[in-house]
Parts: sequence; structure tokens; C-alpha cells
Amino acid sequence: MRKIILLLFCALTLSTFGQFKNDTIALAKIYEEVLLHSTCYDELNYLCKKIGHRVAGSSSAQSAIDWGKQRLKSLGADTSYLMPVEVPKWSRGKTEFGLIHEKNGSQTTIPIAALGGSVASTLKGKILMVSSVQELEKMDSALVKGKIVFINKPLDAALINTGAAYGNGGETRWRGPKLAESKGAIGCLTRSLTLADDQFPHTGAMEATQIPAAALSAFHSKWLSDELKINPELIFEYHLECSNGGRIQQANVIGEIKGNLYPNEIITIGGHLDSWDIGEGAHDDGTGCVQSMEVLRTLRALGYQPRRTIRVVLFINEEFGNDGGITYAKKSVENGDRHLAAIESDGGGFSPRGFSTQSPDSRYQQWMTWLPLFEPYNLHSFKRGWSGVDIGPLKNDEVALFALNVDNQRYFDYHHTANDIFENVNKRELQLGAASMAGLVYLIDQHFSPLP
Amino acid sequence: MRKIILLLFCALTLSTFGQFKNDTIALAKIYEEVLLHSTCYDELNYLCKKIGHRVAGSSSAQSAIDWGKQRLKSLGADTSYLMPVEVPKWSRGKTEFGLIHEKNGSQTTIPIAALGGSVASTLKGKILMVSSVQELEKMDSALVKGKIVFINKPLDAALINTGAAYGNGGETRWRGPKLAESKGAIGCLTRSLTLADDQFPHTGAMEATQIPAAALSAFHSKWLSDELKINPELIFEYHLECSNGGRIQQANVIGEIKGNLYPNEIITIGGHLDSWDIGEGAHDDGTGCVQSMEVLRTLRALGYQPRRTIRVVLFINEEFGNDGGITYAKKSVENGDRHLAAIESDGGGFSPRGFSTQSPDSRYQQWMTWLPLFEPYNLHSFKRGWSGVDIGPLKNDEVALFALNVDNQRYFDYHHTANDIFENVNKRELQLGAASMAGLVYLIDQHFSPLP
Repeated sequence: MRKIILLLFCALTLSTFGQFKNDTIALAKIYEEVLLHSTCYDELNYLCKKIGHRVAGSSSAQSAIDWGKQRLKSLGADTSYLMPVEVPKWSRGKTEFGLIHEKNGSQTTIPIAALGGSVASTLKGKILMVSSVQELEKMDSALVKGKIVFINKPLDAALINTGAAYGNGGETRWRGPKLAESKGAIGCLTRSLTLADDQFPHTGAMEATQIPAAALSAFHSKWLSDELKINPELIFEYHLECSNGGRIQQANVIGEIKGNLYPNEIITIGGHLDSWDIGEGAHDDGTGCVQSMEVLRTLRALGYQPRRTIRVVLFINEEFGNDGGITYAKKSVENGDRHLAAIESDGGGFSPRGFSTQSPDSRYQQWMTWLPLFEPYNLHSFKRGWSGVDIGPLKNDEVALFALNVDNQRYFDYHHTANDIFENVNKRELQLGAASMAGLVYLIDQHFSPLP
Repeated sequence: MRKIILLLFCALTLSTFGQFKNDTIALAKIYEEVLLHSTCYDELNYLCKKIGHRVAGSSSAQSAIDWGKQRLKSLGADTSYLMPVEVPKWSRGKTEFGLIHEKNGSQTTIPIAALGGSVASTLKGKILMVSSVQELEKMDSALVKGKIVFINKPLDAALINTGAAYGNGGETRWRGPKLAESKGAIGCLTRSLTLADDQFPHTGAMEATQIPAAALSAFHSKWLSDELKINPELIFEYHLECSNGGRIQQANVIGEIKGNLYPNEIITIGGHLDSWDIGEGAHDDGTGCVQSMEVLRTLRALGYQPRRTIRVVLFINEEFGNDGGITYAKKSVENGDRHLAAIESDGGGFSPRGFSTQSPDSRYQQWMTWLPLFEPYNLHSFKRGWSGVDIGPLKNDEVALFALNVDNQRYFDYHHTANDIFENVNKRELQLGAASMAGLVYLIDQHFSPLP
């Protein structure tokens, strides 16, 4: 009996070792293919430089949708197609700046960025600076009424994870303007959600309000704060030409390779094709889109026939209501699709550090055994945590959701600004992220047990 | 007896746990101090923008030496002083370009960068392209004689570690020109040691030769290679005004805090103050210098009294013969200094990933137990390996040598080019490296057993 157990143990160990060796070779091939032959940096160049920024509802977003469908097919998808999604159509307008009026009649122009959905405005008012939404919450409405509230809260630079700093500080932008309106403010200014000390205002989504709302750069927030200490009577004047154009139909872009063993089991990989309407949407999230496309190209280039259906999804309107992600999950249920896994890249095209996951326990345990396969590629962080906005609505008891986690120290320097441009993406960092995603797709496809 | 053993075990476990907790708190304080109050980014700004590039032997290198001595004292060193070092004085000169002559008389100007120590030249010659120094080695001298050898070997992009790609490919620049000379070539051109596809030529050290030697950018290497296929009769013409000015005296800059328990045991931290003479020497190695200075500032700001003597060394002439490192080690022996440890940062100011070490076994084992303390700061890689050029000569049986290892995907985009400028250094990445070094200094100071 002991001999049999020993033999079984040896066989199992050898087979596990053999599998590890095969997977090691497969990952080496994937990384090499991406580092030597990837097209993702060129795809990103086209998306950023020829199409440019592409807020949902815009004509450039439509150009990106058409481009994505064509590119996915060219890169080797069996089929590429569009999934209609209703999105808002909001426009920033051409002119956008703020004026600071001093009592002596002098004026200073400062850059601002309307927050998503802001109304147009040319109104003027006295500035009331607060240090946080919590301070504003406690404040007597009588003090706020008729003022332009300026929420001057910096992100917490002591946090190592800049995503956590953004998460903690995000309420300034998300809740601030609506809260100010509820207290009788006539406008709102928010300090940009960044750790950089520069002059780029950062836009982003907020709870809908009817008062104008715009971000100041970190530099101008400090400057205005200092000015207000000397002269609390400063007047701010908005120049915003935003317009809300209702809702229109655009689309998620989908390209897939049919699985040959379990074609009804889906592995989705994606990023969001929309961006904000300043800069070029390079790190947010052009990189996630072209990395997902690169996964498909790589599997094809290596002649890999997936067992499950691999589906690349370029989601529309992550930034302004997550319409693409919500619609995709809803349609999946309607179509009877069963998702084995989904992987999102939406943290910028920086050096990959690992993945975080929202997964059922058994999947999680199995996935954790793959960590040694990724360590030679400097991915050391496998942990439970956030997956992604776009794939989040897919969550159920059986799907394993993953986020590609990257070195995010620089992300909030560029995020939602005119500085989120192609030149700030490094080719190798972008490629390494794509290769890491392709490696994870391969392992899931090979080793996850079939859905019940 | 079993009870006693159990009690001892519990006491040991509790004390180990207590120590771990204390160290965790100490590291948290160090990282917070650096992230919230560091001055290293401003120091780097001054070094890059007010002093600029500073090749050993230059007047700007002298300015940097004077600046370093003054800054170390201001940042809290008990003493700061200079250690005389003899260095070469080589000048690039004002004019530097290449001309490509076609048979039809047309000329094309291309950017080149003389390699360190190159002679001045205005000579012309036919180009002989080879794919590697190995190909050149095997080549009949008759084929090489009278030609300008162009070694067009790209770095291996498939390697994950760009430092390894640089290490493997470095012989093109280091051995190539001397080898070409030995075969009768009249000049040498080398493809830049980079993975970027841009127009910056990368300079660097080479074995001394009497023929002119210069680097072409990756872009122009490809371009010239393509041109030579169409027209193998192309003539290259050097325009180099370099001059060798013998050897002069400059200095290592040293600032130290005296240890209160083992003042004769030294922990050295450093980077090299010299740079190449294009760009601003930001990542190579302004960042290593200001990070080392930041370690000193941080320990002082936290009111930490070290047990050992902490010595910050800004080494002179790493790039062109390692005079500073060699002199420092020699003087240490002469002075009877005993080095407990030395830490070098010379891989660029990018996000830290860990440390590598050349250490005696017992130190190595102890150091490996500290890895969990650094994981919250995203340092996951503790391994045996390279420490640094400057501290390398300190190696003996008792000293533990460490390199700060960083994410090096971008390093060789900037390395030894006009693009190695302050703007390409991210403040937080720089700070996190400094905090990691300070954390390691703290742990070594607290926990390494005294030297025998």
C-alpha cells in the first residue's frame, strides 16, 4: 500500500513538475513574442495621434469604435462586431478658463477643467475655501449660500499606493459639487486629484448638479489658497461653454477567437475605449485597449488554439456612467454567455507588478499557485482586491475577475489631463503589461476546470 | 525541562515579534518622512539645472563637489569633507556631428556622440558594417584596414532585465573601437546601447584607442544600415573636437554622522557625482546622490542617533575609470576604517523593486529575514547579485554590499544621452528609492552584529 501511495505521489509530483515546465516554456514564448514583435505601441500611437481624445458620445469616440472593429479583425479575431450601448453626449465647448478678480480691478486668468457634466457658465462669485467635503458638510448653509465653494484637499502623499490615495480623496470631485449645491452654493471648484505639483487641471466624473463645477491644478490650488489668505474678498468668474446633448447610441467593440473545447465558456479581456476629452487618453485607457488587442495578436502569432472563447472587449463610456460595462454584463446574461474569467487593464501602461482578483475561493487557490510562473517577469503581487469598473458588473458566484496591477506612482500625474499623451507611455512597460495579460489568459484557458 | 524550553521559545517568539513590530513602525516613519518632507527632488533640480552635466575633470564637476560638501553639512552631517581623487580631464569640444557622403556628392548630417576618451577627428572613410564584435574578431584584417568600422548590434529586447541586455551588449562600445583599431580600422562607429528607437546617441566609456570612436542613435543605426544595403560605397566623415587634458585632482565628497556605539564601524551610502557630458546626469547618477543625501536628512529629521557611523559618499568619476571608488576603498584600508556595509544607488531614480547583495553568508541570511518589512512598500526582490561600481572595490570577507534595484525598463532610454534630464525623473519614484535606502541603513545599523 505504501509503495502504491509513494508511486502515486511521485507520478503526481512529476506531472505537476512537468506541467510547471510546460507553462514556464509557454510564458517564455508569450513574453518573447510580445517584446520582439508586438504592435501595441503602434496601435496606441494611431489611437492617440490620429484619433485623439474620445469622450463617449463624441465623433472621435465613434472613429475609435470603427477603428477598433477593423483592427481586431486584422489582428486575427474570428469575428469582430459592435454591441450597441446608449451613452451621454456632453461637450466641454471651446473656451474654458477662470478669472480671479481682485478688489483693485486686476484680473488673473487661470486654467480650469470643467468636471464631466458641468453646465456652461459665466457667473462670478465670492470664493469660500474649505479643506474637505467633511468640513463643507458640517458648515451652516447660510455661510455657503451664494458663494463659489473651493474644496482644497490634497491627496495623501504618505500612502504608498497612489490608487488608495485617489480612492480616499475622490469624494472631493465626486460628492463635492452636489453637496455645495445642496447648501446653496452657486458654483464649485475642486482641487485636482493628483500627487504632482503641476499646472494641469484634472477633470473627471461627479454627481450631477446644476451649478458649474471645475477643477484647478494642484499648483493653482496652492496659489489660490495663498492668495485667499491675503485677500479673502477675491471673486472667481467661470468661463465654461459646456453643453449636455442628451443620450445617443454608440457601442462596445468586440473581437473573439472561438474556443475549440468549451466555446460557451468566455474569457473576456478588455479596457475602455472612451477617454476624457482633454489629452489623448493614452494611459487612461488607450493602453488597456491596445494591450487587450495585443493578447489576441500574440495568441494568433504563436498559433495557439484556445479551448475557451477568448473575447477582447473595448468598452465604451467607462468614464461617465459605465454604460459599456453595465450593458455588456446585461447582454451576457440575456445571451446565456457563461464567463469563466475576465481581465481588465485600466491602471495605465506602466510596468506590471501583479494582478488582483475577485474570485471564488477554489479559483483563487488555483491562481495563487501560478505566482512562481510570473516572478521571472517581476510580477510579485497576487492578491484579492479590485478588478475593474468595466468588468465589475460581470461579478457572480462563478466568474474570476482580475485587474492587471501596475506600478502606479506616475499614473495620477497624467490621469484625466491634457498631459495624458502617447509620449508619456513607455513601449516596454506597455508590452510587459500585455504579455502578462496574455500569460494569464493562457493559464486560465489551460487549467481552470470547466464551469459546472 | 520541556516547560523551560517552551517558555524560552515563547519569549524568543515574542521578542522576535516585538522586534518585527518595532522595525515595522520605524520603516513606516521613514517612508512617511521622505514622502511628506523630503528635499531630494529639489536637490536634484539644483544639481541638474544650476550645475548641469559634470564629467569628471570639468569645472562643472568641481561646482558639484563644492555644492555637495555644502549641502551635506546643511542637511545635518556632523562633518562634511573632501577626499582628493585624481581623475582624467577629457573634453568633448563644441562641434560634434557626422557627415554621410554619397557618390553623387550629396551629404547628410547625422548626430553622433564621441565615446569617452575619443580623439578629435575630421577624417573620412568607407564604412564597413559588422553585426557584432564577434564578427569583427573573425574578420581578416585586410578587409578592415583603412575602413571605418560600424558595429550595428542592437540590445536584446527579449531580456526582461534591461541591465542584463546592457551587460551582454556592452562589449560593442567597450571592446569594439580598440578591436577595430587592432585590425587596422581608421575609425569606429557603434550602435547606441539602448532599447529605445529614438535619435539620441548614447556615449560611454571604451578601452583607450587612437582612432576616433562615436555612437550613433538606434534610429540612425537602422537608417545607415538600410542605406548601406542600397549603397555600400558610402563615406563617413567625423567632426569631433575632443581633447585629452591629462589628469587633474578633484574629490569624493563625504558627509557623516558619527555612530555612538560602534563609531569605527562604517555604513557607506552613495552614488556618483560625475556624469557624462551631455544631458544633465539626472538618472545617472544625480538621483543616487540626492537619495543618499536624503537618507542622512531623514535620519536627522527623525532624531535618529545611529550606533554605527553613517557615511554618505558622492563618488567622483565612476564613468571613466572608477577613480573615486578605487581611491575610497584604498583610503579606507589606509585609515583602518572597517566597513560593516555599503549601499549604492546607480540604476536610475525609478520605483524601487528590492536590493541585490554581495555579502558574507551570515549577513545574507539575516538580511533575507527583513524582506517582509519591505513588502508593504512594493519591494519584493532580495537576491544575491551585483552591488555597484563605486562600492565594488570595498569588497572583502566582512563587508555587506548592496545595490538598490529599481524598475529599469526606462533606464536605457536616457542613459548617457542628452535626454537624461531632470524632467524625466518622477518625484515619488525618487523618494521611494531614498526611503528604501534609509530603511535598509536603519536595519543594518540596528541589527547587524558587531564586526569581529
